[in-house]
Amino acid sequence: MNKPGILDNVRIVLSHTSHPGNIGAAARAMKTMGLTSLYLVNPKRFPNNQADVMSAGAQDVLENAVVCSSLDEALQGTALAVAITARSRDLSHAAVTSRQAAPQIMEHALAHKVALVFGTEMSGLTNEEVNKCQMLASIPSDQEFSSLNLAAAVQVMAYELRMALPDTGLAEPKIRDFAALEDIERFYQHLEQVLVEIEFLDPQEPKRLMQRFRRLFSRTRLEREEVNILRGVLAAVQKS
Amino acid sequence: MNKPGILDNVRIVLSHTSHPGNIGAAARAMKTMGLTSLYLVNPKRFPNNQADVMSAGAQDVLENAVVCSSLDEALQGTALAVAITARSRDLSHAAVTSRQAAPQIMEHALAHKVALVFGTEMSGLTNEEVNKCQMLASIPSDQEFSSLNLAAAVQVMAYELRMALPDTGLAEPKIRDFAALEDIERFYQHLEQVLVEIEFLDPQEPKRLMQRFRRLFSRTRLEREEVNILRGVLAAVQKS
Repeated sequence: MNKPGILDNVRIVLSHTSHPGNIGAAARAMKTMGLTSLYLVNPKRFPNNQADVMSAGAQDVLENAVVCSSLDEALQGTALAVAITARSRDLSHAAVTSRQAAPQIMEHALAHKVALVFGTEMSGLTNEEVNKCQMLASIPSDQEFSSLNLAAAVQVMAYELRMALPDTGLAEPKIRDFAALEDIERFYQHLEQVLVEIEFLDPQEPKRLMQRFRRLFSRTRLEREEVNILRGVLAAVQKS
Repeated sequence: MNKPGILDNVRIVLSHTSHPGNIGAAARAMKTMGLTSLYLVNPKRFPNNQADVMSAGAQDVLENAVVCSSLDEALQGTALAVAITARSRDLSHAAVTSRQAAPQIMEHALAHKVALVFGTEMSGLTNEEVNKCQMLASIPSDQEFSSLNLAAAVQVMAYELRMALPDTGLAEPKIRDFAALEDIERFYQHLEQVLVEIEFLDPQEPKRLMQRFRRLFSRTRLEREEVNILRGVLAAVQKS
């Protein structure tokens, strides 16, 4: 697959952005690195003149932006969602640097849609939003002044992806048939249901165990056939 | 030498900047990566309220900025000046990427002052300015849309310098409590047994499916507690 093809599979998702100028600046940052797919979850103001001005010629990215009413909607059809966050979080996610994340993201983007999810200017992503992602990436920064401008963070991540484009020559990266996130969600629902039926789930704390399972399977990046197998096992348990 | 020491030796030089907002945004970008030394060659408007606003807390970088009337003045005392440029130039300079430049810059910064020189928003650096530098670094970008915002370019270069620090200082690697391999083997045996009991395993090809499960769980690097949970689920299935 050619390079533009890979980058076309990368979706930049901006959640609840306050300043339209940042949306425009993010569009420009994306386009300089060859990214064009922009999703906006409940932007405060969009479309907006300030966004157009700051895009500085990346008007097409703004015009083709998809405005969504929820993060779920913005993640539809993706096989990997990466939360970009400055704060270190006490969550059960694989946390990597922007640089470590890039090749993994590009591996997915070879044949699947992937999303990079950015939170608001003031407070970043909510825990609920982070939980919908399978990977957590942080841009290394000064501990006492760690808050990058939103568009600057988009610029750094887009830059890292471009730098991670597969070079011609070396071993062809193997294309893996990753499962769609909505199918993985259906698997979790099915799993929870079966765990209740076999009375394994602690009714006092059902969420906690499910969180452990999410963590386990998020690390492994389930493939489509694997989800089918796992659901087959669950169905067999229900019939037995 | 400690990290701040190295980064203190790096000077960001902005030549003939038109928009004060870009100066403020550049100051913010610098500070997020631990850079504080800003030199301004004939800025169009400075100090300026828009610069203050865009610095978003990097006010100290602006207050300590050195305003110069020539590039020569801004390069005083440096041992290396690196021109940051998007355009490819027919000049007799060593031209490298931002990533290739970073470790070389940091090597100099160990014991010397170094300067990264950025030109105007519209036309970049003049040939005369580039000629005063010893190295020419370009940020890889889309050929048809290669013009990064000035502060975004500062952000990427500052980020590369920080990543070239001996240690990025990001999240302490979390020590995970991995399961012992023999416990994982016992889990596989237990899993195979349960799959037979619920009649999910193809008796013709039992090994093939187990191989799939091994592949799935090998990728995830199971932790001890996770193996306990999984075996607990298997036991619950057997009791149900």
